[in-house]
Amino acid sequence: MIDLMIPFTDNKSAPYYEQIYCFIKREIQEGRISAGEKLPSTRQLAEKLSVSRSTTQLAYDQLVAEGYLEARPCRGYYAAEVESLLAMPERSSEKMELRSEAAGEERGEEMLDFSPRGIDLGHFPFSVWRKLSRETLQEGNREFFASGLPRGEQKLRRAICDYLQASRGIHCRPEQVVVGAGSEYLLMLLWQITGKRRIAMENPTYRQASRVLRGLGHDIVPVAMDRSGMRADLLAQSDADMAYIMPSHQFPTGAVMSVSRRREILNWSAEVPGRYLIEDDYDSEFRYRGRPIPALCGSDYAGRVIYIGTFSKAVAPAIRVSFMVLPEELNRRYDEVCGFYASTVSRVDQEILARFLEEGHFERHLNRMRGIYRNKHDALLEALEPLRKEFRISGEMAGLHLLLESRRGEREETLTARAAEAGVRVYGLSAYFLEPAESHTVILGYANLEEEEIRRGVQILQEAWSTKESI
Amino acid sequence: MIDLMIPFTDNKSAPYYEQIYCFIKREIQEGRISAGEKLPSTRQLAEKLSVSRSTTQLAYDQLVAEGYLEARPCRGYYAAEVESLLAMPERSSEKMELRSEAAGEERGEEMLDFSPRGIDLGHFPFSVWRKLSRETLQEGNREFFASGLPRGEQKLRRAICDYLQASRGIHCRPEQVVVGAGSEYLLMLLWQITGKRRIAMENPTYRQASRVLRGLGHDIVPVAMDRSGMRADLLAQSDADMAYIMPSHQFPTGAVMSVSRRREILNWSAEVPGRYLIEDDYDSEFRYRGRPIPALCGSDYAGRVIYIGTFSKAVAPAIRVSFMVLPEELNRRYDEVCGFYASTVSRVDQEILARFLEEGHFERHLNRMRGIYRNKHDALLEALEPLRKEFRISGEMAGLHLLLESRRGEREETLTARAAEAGVRVYGLSAYFLEPAESHTVILGYANLEEEEIRRGVQILQEAWSTKESI
Repeated sequence: MIDLMIPFTDNKSAPYYEQIYCFIKREIQEGRISAGEKLPSTRQLAEKLSVSRSTTQLAYDQLVAEGYLEARPCRGYYAAEVESLLAMPERSSEKMELRSEAAGEERGEEMLDFSPRGIDLGHFPFSVWRKLSRETLQEGNREFFASGLPRGEQKLRRAICDYLQASRGIHCRPEQVVVGAGSEYLLMLLWQITGKRRIAMENPTYRQASRVLRGLGHDIVPVAMDRSGMRADLLAQSDADMAYIMPSHQFPTGAVMSVSRRREILNWSAEVPGRYLIEDDYDSEFRYRGRPIPALCGSDYAGRVIYIGTFSKAVAPAIRVSFMVLPEELNRRYDEVCGFYASTVSRVDQEILARFLEEGHFERHLNRMRGIYRNKHDALLEALEPLRKEFRISGEMAGLHLLLESRRGEREETLTARAAEAGVRVYGLSAYFLEPAESHTVILGYANLEEEEIRRGVQILQEAWSTKESI
Repeated sequence: MIDLMIPFTDNKSAPYYEQIYCFIKREIQEGRISAGEKLPSTRQLAEKLSVSRSTTQLAYDQLVAEGYLEARPCRGYYAAEVESLLAMPERSSEKMELRSEAAGEERGEEMLDFSPRGIDLGHFPFSVWRKLSRETLQEGNREFFASGLPRGEQKLRRAICDYLQASRGIHCRPEQVVVGAGSEYLLMLLWQITGKRRIAMENPTYRQASRVLRGLGHDIVPVAMDRSGMRADLLAQSDADMAYIMPSHQFPTGAVMSVSRRREILNWSAEVPGRYLIEDDYDSEFRYRGRPIPALCGSDYAGRVIYIGTFSKAVAPAIRVSFMVLPEELNRRYDEVCGFYASTVSRVDQEILARFLEEGHFERHLNRMRGIYRNKHDALLEALEPLRKEFRISGEMAGLHLLLESRRGEREETLTARAAEAGVRVYGLSAYFLEPAESHTVILGYANLEEEEIRRGVQILQEAWSTKESI
C-alpha cells in the first residue's frame, strides 16, 4: 500500500480535503502512483494526517468521481488507469464546488453506495449451486478433470443455445458458440479473427469494453446516440468497419434501440463485406415493464452479428463464464485461427452451469431476481418522485440503474460531491464518455442496496441537493 | 460430424487404408475439412465403408502421426490446424511404409496409447477437493461470488509465492503474480505488455505455445538445442529480442539446461535493454532422480525472467489456473496496460486452490503422484531394456514421457505406423519441430497408463518393430 505523506500548506485558503485531492491527483497524473496501486483507506489516511475521516472521504469521492481512483467494494480504493484520464479536461481545484464546512463533521456510518456495477448477491442460490457442485465432484466423474473441448463442453453450449432461443429469439447451433472466462477474453479471441479494426462505439458506453478494445490495438470511433440508440447516419459517415452496440439496453444510457434503427444498423453491416456488429447483451435479463426486447442477432439476415452474453450479471460476477455466438464466416475463421486454444473455463464449472441452466434453476433464479430488482427499481422511482421537477429521470424499465439529469444544468461534479458529503455515493455520467464531455447527469445503481436503503439514500440526496441550491 | 464418402478406386494396388488416408489428408489440405471438425469414429467409418475397423484405425493413426488429425481422449478424432501443416514436407502415399496385410485383422480391444499429453487422474484427491468446495460454497462466503481482484485473490497469490519459494527457489511478492485461466491467456496478456516481438524458441518445442505466440503476431525464431538446452551462440546470432525456454525440463526433449548455459542465456537477456526470457516451468514437479532443478527465475539478477507456471499438470487439466511472475519493469507496465482486466478465474476456484496449497494438500498430492509416476517411469525404463541396442533412450529422470531414437535410422513414420498396426499408439518427434524435420525418434508418454499396460505395450512394440525389421 502507498504511504501518502501529504505536505499541507500553511495557507489555510485551501481546505484540507482539497489539498489531499490535489496531491493524490498530481501523484497519479505524474505516474508516482501507478494504475492499480492501492491507497490507504479513508480512515487510515485520516489518522495519519490527523484530519477527520469525512475530510479524506470527500477527497476520495471527488477523485472517484473524476476517475482518478476506483472504489472496489469491500476492497478499498485503487489508482485508476491514467492514460485515459490524461485526455480528460483538467479540472482545476478552484472549480471544485465542494462545501468545505461539512468536512469537519465526523460520520460514523458507511456511505450509501448507488454503484451501477453492484449486483444483489443476497439471493444467490447457494444450496442449489453447492448441490450441483457436490454431485459433479464425484470419483466417477473423473472426465471433468481431464481436458475438455476447446470451445467449451457440448452440454453447456447446447444449454446456451436453448436459452438463447427461448429468451432472446436467437436460433443458433452449439457449433457456433464459444465459451470463455469473461467477455474480455472473448474480445481477445475475436481480435485474432477479425484483426485490427476501426470500431464504432456508442458514446457514452461501457468503458471497460473500450479499454479492452483499445488495448488490443483497435481504433475506437465514438458515435453519438439519440433516444433510438447509436445514430445510423453518423455511423454511415464514420470510417468504422465494425460497431460495438448494446441494442437491448444500452449502458449507461438505458436506451433501447428502436426497430427501425436496428434495421438501419443491420443494413450498414450488410452493405460492405467484412463489416461486423458486436452485440453486447450484458443484462437483457432484467426488464420490468413492457415487452421483452429480442436480441438484434435474431434479425441478423446477413450473418454479421457477433453476439456476446455473460452469466456474470445474471448469476454472479464470480461465475466467470461468458459466451459468444459467431456468424458462419467468422466461425470458420475461428476454427482456423483460434481452434487450438483450450477452454478457459474449468469443465467442473461448465458442468455445474450447464445443469443450472438445463434443470431450470437459472430460469427460477432469474424470475426471482427480476422480482427483487423490480421492487428495488420501483422503490427508487417512487422515492425519486419529488425530485422530478429538478431532474429528468431516464433509463428506467430495465437494467440495474437509473439516470438523473439536472434540469437546471448543475454539473455532475457538484451533484456527486454534495451527495458524497452527505454520505451517499452517486456516479457521474462523464466517466462513460469516450471523449471529454461536460455532464449534468448522475447514475444511481440500486442492485446492491435494500429498498429501505434506497429510500433513505434518496431522502439524503434530496436534502443535499436542495440545501446546496439555496446557498 | 463430417460425412466421409470415400470413393474407393477399382485399382487394387493401393490398399483401402491408404486410400482413406489419402482422401482425408487431401480434404484437410484443401480446406474441405476445416480445423477442429470432428471426424467419424474408426468404427463408424469402417461400417459406412464396409471395411474392417483396423483399416480405418490404420489410416487415422497415420493421419495423427503426420499431424493432420488430433486424437482427443474419450472424444474422438478432430481435424488439426492446417496452416502449420502446409509448411510440412509433402509425404506422398507411396512412401507410406505401412504393412497392409495387418489391416485385415480385426482387433477387439482399444489401442494402448502412450500419449505424452496424458496425466493420471485416477489419484485425483476428489474427497479433499469436494470438501474444500463444499466449505467454500457457504451462504456466509457471499464475497466469493462478487468480483475479485484483477490479478487474482491475494490469498492465492501469497500461497503461490510460498510454493515458489519453497520448491522452485524463487523469491517473489504476491504483487508480482498474475493469476489467469491457462498459460495461453497469460501469453495474451503478456503480448499486450511487451508488444510484438521476435521470440526465440527451442526447436523442437511445445507446439501449442508456438501456435499461440504466432497467433498473437509474434515472429518465431527457431533455435537449435544441444544436450545443455537452447544453444546460446545461436541465440546470440539470432535477431530475437525475447526467448521462450523450458530450462528445468524441456518439452519434448527432456533436456535440463546446464548451469553454465543458464548463465549464458541470462547474460544474453541482460545485455540489451528490453530483452526478456519466458520461463515455462510446466512440469518441474515431477523429477525422480538427482537433485531438484531450481527455476531459472531464481537466478535472474537483471529482472528479465517472466516465469509461467500452471496447476494443469500437477493437479488436473480441468483446473484452469496458471500464473506468471513478472519482473519489476514489466510488472509496472502490466498495471498500466492490463490492470483493468478482471481475473479469468472464478473466486470460488481460487479459494479452493489457495486452501489446497495452504493446507498442505498440494504437497501431499505431489508427493503421492511423484511416487506413482516414478513407478511408471521405472517400469517403462525396465521394460525398454531389451530395446536399448536398437534405440537410444533419453528424457528419463523427469517429466511424464521418454524419447526413443532409432539407432538404425528408421523413420518415425515407420515406427509409429508399425506400432499402430499392432495396437499401440506412440508419437513422432517431428510434430514438435518448428520447421519441417526428418525424425527417427518416437515419444512414449506413460502418465495415463497402468504399469501393467506399460509393460504390455512395450512388449507389443518390441515385437512390432523387430518383426517388421526382418521383412
